[in-house]
Amino acid sequence: MSAIKDDPIQIISEYTRFPSVSTDPAFASGMEGARDYAAKLLAAAGLAVEIVKTPLHPIVLGRRAGPAEWPHVVIYGHYDVQPADPLDQWTTPPFEPAVRDGRLFARGAADNKGPHTVGILALTRLLARRPDLPLRVTFLLEGEEEIGSPSFPEFLRARAAELREADFVLLSDTGSPSAEQIVVTTGLRGIAGFELQLTGPRTDLHSGLHGGAVFNPVQALAEICASLHNADGSVNVPGFYDGVEPPAAWEREELRKFPLTEESYREFLGVDALYAQPGVTPIEATRYAPTLEFNGIGGGYQGGGSKTIIPARAFAKITCRLVPGQDAEDIIRKVTGAVLARVPAGVRAEVKVMQGNNAYCVVPPRRPNTPAGQNPVLARAFDAAAAAVTEAFGRAPLFLREGGSVPIIGDIKRVTGLDSLMLGLFTPESNLHAPDESIELSIITRGIAAYELLLERVADGGR
Amino acid sequence: MSAIKDDPIQIISEYTRFPSVSTDPAFASGMEGARDYAAKLLAAAGLAVEIVKTPLHPIVLGRRAGPAEWPHVVIYGHYDVQPADPLDQWTTPPFEPAVRDGRLFARGAADNKGPHTVGILALTRLLARRPDLPLRVTFLLEGEEEIGSPSFPEFLRARAAELREADFVLLSDTGSPSAEQIVVTTGLRGIAGFELQLTGPRTDLHSGLHGGAVFNPVQALAEICASLHNADGSVNVPGFYDGVEPPAAWEREELRKFPLTEESYREFLGVDALYAQPGVTPIEATRYAPTLEFNGIGGGYQGGGSKTIIPARAFAKITCRLVPGQDAEDIIRKVTGAVLARVPAGVRAEVKVMQGNNAYCVVPPRRPNTPAGQNPVLARAFDAAAAAVTEAFGRAPLFLREGGSVPIIGDIKRVTGLDSLMLGLFTPESNLHAPDESIELSIITRGIAAYELLLERVADGGR
Repeated sequence: MSAIKDDPIQIISEYTRFPSVSTDPAFASGMEGARDYAAKLLAAAGLAVEIVKTPLHPIVLGRRAGPAEWPHVVIYGHYDVQPADPLDQWTTPPFEPAVRDGRLFARGAADNKGPHTVGILALTRLLARRPDLPLRVTFLLEGEEEIGSPSFPEFLRARAAELREADFVLLSDTGSPSAEQIVVTTGLRGIAGFELQLTGPRTDLHSGLHGGAVFNPVQALAEICASLHNADGSVNVPGFYDGVEPPAAWEREELRKFPLTEESYREFLGVDALYAQPGVTPIEATRYAPTLEFNGIGGGYQGGGSKTIIPARAFAKITCRLVPGQDAEDIIRKVTGAVLARVPAGVRAEVKVMQGNNAYCVVPPRRPNTPAGQNPVLARAFDAAAAAVTEAFGRAPLFLREGGSVPIIGDIKRVTGLDSLMLGLFTPESNLHAPDESIELSIITRGIAAYELLLERVADGGR
Repeated sequence: MSAIKDDPIQIISEYTRFPSVSTDPAFASGMEGARDYAAKLLAAAGLAVEIVKTPLHPIVLGRRAGPAEWPHVVIYGHYDVQPADPLDQWTTPPFEPAVRDGRLFARGAADNKGPHTVGILALTRLLARRPDLPLRVTFLLEGEEEIGSPSFPEFLRARAAELREADFVLLSDTGSPSAEQIVVTTGLRGIAGFELQLTGPRTDLHSGLHGGAVFNPVQALAEICASLHNADGSVNVPGFYDGVEPPAAWEREELRKFPLTEESYREFLGVDALYAQPGVTPIEATRYAPTLEFNGIGGGYQGGGSKTIIPARAFAKITCRLVPGQDAEDIIRKVTGAVLARVPAGVRAEVKVMQGNNAYCVVPPRRPNTPAGQNPVLARAFDAAAAAVTEAFGRAPLFLREGGSVPIIGDIKRVTGLDSLMLGLFTPESNLHAPDESIELSIITRGIAAYELLLERVADGGR
């Protein structure tokens, strides 16, 4: 494959031409095309490729073996993409990559074909320059990330023995505020999701004829939902904060260097005031505090004008974001228990649990809360990442936890014991999961340089 | 027109063949057909017919004039009907009347063609038997009742001088529990309707990236809605109960004779407990207490599974049912004020007022709360109704207020000073506004007998 000697933008453009939409069977050939292309890139880098069948979309592995004394890095990425709808909101078609204003526009350019291709091309260059590099590498490219990685836990269990031999996972599936300020993501919040369904009378009732005799399920829903926060903004579920620690002093310090003020954030969100809760600033809250959020609510008449009914049913969709110290199963029990205890007579309730994953957190070396016995290769990788980003991007990265959830990172840790080093290569302008997804060209080229430096330092550091 | 000598069931069947759906311009010829048929029935009774143009559907008037010493009754009805959807849920087509199980099935059979035809046919018989009956009659058949009577207030203002000369309004557009227990409806609740719309961030937000920094509009909505009731079940809006009186002792006495127990009502509604609030039983509450009900609520993700967003917007549709002593404009001000005062920082609110009408109440003669100077013809009409129903149906009627709202009754009272005597001729089985609408055949025949007795007694009572 000669393409690898070409411009990286050219390679990512070819890769993103394959419409690898994992959720829609109509895109099976796009999935296959992207998978083959990824496999060729890995082979061109000198890796031994294995396609691992799963019940749905295969996982692509690319291995560089070596003696046990060589550091071993697992590099994660995913070759599947989100659906591209609404198509009419794209400036150029989603699977016809286009360069404009210093950015490459295509579905998957930023999430995640561009970022993991950065890793493949960096390794390609590094091995071309140093064919004897003392580094073991396992590339692991998933095809089901955008549909919740259903096959991934079983894959992890099947390959646990092999993966446990590695030192750490490296990935770029998180964000940075800009090319001028790269973030190394040191943690992600967990998530616990519920749907609360209330049922009152056997059918919608005439609110004139029956109003006053029936506990309106929407009223019950409002009362239960309202009870879930205290007046100070904290979550009102007994034991919800058990085990929750405030952010470490060094984490607060890092966040203060983040290029965002409360005023600029407030303006960005378009609200007249940020949410207040005890113990954290609003910006800290999005990364270091747990939440209970209502994602949707519904019941009764939703159309124009009025319809004078007492609705028979109402529901709310609720997700909690969890931080280290909280256990998703425990939070699910506590929230479910609190909700069911607050259902009034005359209304029946059911809580459906939708999902549950713990938070993930890794502490860089030499912080007050760095765990004793941290893998020395991981520790060196953090230092290498700091140096590599500083050299390639011109400024040291910030080490920050992020508010979103990437359940597979926690799964990997739990099953294999491996921690993850997450380098943010997309930015707020990247429009992830939205029309006109794009990645900055300079982040691709600087990212390749940073990955090359990072991997070389990890290799030369030994085990 | 020979039809009037025919079976009343035959006449109502012919009348209901005209699909007079007022809300849908596609049914213009059905409206015209029903209007012509009603006019012919009135003419056949010996009345002088006038078609009063309105901006939408004309009003049909039928007058029997006479000297000022004759009592004058206005008989109200409406010739328009609700849409018949969903058509596939009708056992026989809605505009092809069919008799089954002692009932006449057709859209409009019970609401309201059947009941007002009962009045026309009773008068027809009475005048055939007593051509010199000393009674003035004004039939007033509206064509816009099912769409909120938009032209009616202007008609009332235009004809106020003439209508003020009458003694009372007689109508049958309310219900009774069964043919064995007819109800004379002595009051209706008023209504005040709102839509509360909350706006938070400029767009739906990722609940992981931003959760903790934003006041979720659904949380704000839940907290505001939850605040609108006290723990004891009463409405928590300052001044909401100003002027509200408990039901009179005689009204409670009447209601105790109503064939409904709390247990049977609870089972009918399909709930495990009725709503409790201070000062009234749940059955009393539906007729004699004001309410604040949520008719609908919505915001954020409504589909299957989960979508982890902080919704940008949320809304609730709210209606209050009002009782005598409350003023709709005053309640609108109070509820709006209470809601807006409870909106948290970070969320913007708008309250749209949808409707406002006061309650209506008329007290039969010789009750402790009968107003001084009650029109003697109205007082005699109440006594005549009691005697007529007892004779025709075999049991004395109950005199009860009802929980629904019929705004035109209050409009008539306000503009013309006329009170209304409301005889309930449909029953819970009548399926108003629903598929398989029907009216009991025996109620039609007994209703005609009762109307005939009632009108004759009113006539013979003089002024």
